[in-house]
Amino acid sequence: MPSALILIADGTEEMEFTITYDTLVRAGVSCTSAFVSSEKRDGNEQNPPFAHGSRGINILPDTYFSPQAATPDKYDLLVIPGGAKGAETISGSSPVQHLVRRYLEDGKFVGMICAGSLAALRSNLPKQPLTSHPSVRDQLKDAFEYSEEPVVVSGKLVTSRGPGTAFPFALTLVELLCGKEKRAEVAGPMIFPKRTFA
Amino acid sequence: MPSALILIADGTEEMEFTITYDTLVRAGVSCTSAFVSSEKRDGNEQNPPFAHGSRGINILPDTYFSPQAATPDKYDLLVIPGGAKGAETISGSSPVQHLVRRYLEDGKFVGMICAGSLAALRSNLPKQPLTSHPSVRDQLKDAFEYSEEPVVVSGKLVTSRGPGTAFPFALTLVELLCGKEKRAEVAGPMIFPKRTFA
Repeated sequence: MPSALILIADGTEEMEFTITYDTLVRAGVSCTSAFVSSEKRDGNEQNPPFAHGSRGINILPDTYFSPQAATPDKYDLLVIPGGAKGAETISGSSPVQHLVRRYLEDGKFVGMICAGSLAALRSNLPKQPLTSHPSVRDQLKDAFEYSEEPVVVSGKLVTSRGPGTAFPFALTLVELLCGKEKRAEVAGPMIFPKRTFA
Repeated sequence: MPSALILIADGTEEMEFTITYDTLVRAGVSCTSAFVSSEKRDGNEQNPPFAHGSRGINILPDTYFSPQAATPDKYDLLVIPGGAKGAETISGSSPVQHLVRRYLEDGKFVGMICAGSLAALRSNLPKQPLTSHPSVRDQLKDAFEYSEEPVVVSGKLVTSRGPGTAFPFALTLVELLCGKEKRAEVAGPMIFPKRTFA
């Protein structure tokens, strides 16, 4: 069974987080959400606080982010959702930056959506096709081959634009991890309107 | 500022819940999530447990469902999300059934999505246009004018089909509460792919 580590922080865009996690679970991917703290919170690692989402939904992460427990031998996919403040915290974490590079070096998938694509910049990834939320385009357009496609697959790096592209982002991750047939099997019961993502 | 009460239970479909709540908040709607318990949990009302979503995401509701605090003089919209088990709990609650009828009698909006549409049946609403997830169609098709449109607006009752129609459902609620212009203003930064919901 493929597995995914989905990072979450205070200020994470809760639709992007939830759509990715839920859609991957529907495909049979074992998902773990890990809370990235914006400051060191000593002694709290056994009892993660909830993540306060960008629009006020409070989500209990499955675990606390620990670089040792997040290595690419343990997961097939690392996901960094958007939400300006959450993406700032996650992409600004040097252990996360280190893991992004290690996942890609080890041939594992990394997904970034919305402002989460800032993690590509902060991790010093080489120039390659990438997209993001338009609000962070200017920070990314010189360092990458900036695209406005809903989902951009560049080797093992998968990037996307915002809540409105979160379903095609998640379904692309399903297809890459589990195949085209599984993508169709998962999309069916989600009842997308005609001419959208089905 | 318009306001919405969004019900949640163990087994609620977390994408439908999150997309509706988050999109309404983006439109400036004051949202409150209220946990509907599947059994009486005495003494726990000041400290709501988290809702365990249909795909394993744990969400902390804003409050515990209380019929007295949920009356239509306090909110402009009542929302019942899907997820088979969550919808069963919510639609099976007689205080919820009573509120569904009161909201509609008082000219307030009621939104139901996916298996959440079962609440229309359990509340004995009169025969009218309605949609739902296909998995509960057979229970609804004789009691209502069953439709397969992504979103069905019948007076103040708004119904929809599944996670794949949750964005048009939420944006329709925004339009009904806040107007067409606000819908466009909210949809823009969500970056829907062309030819979908923008």
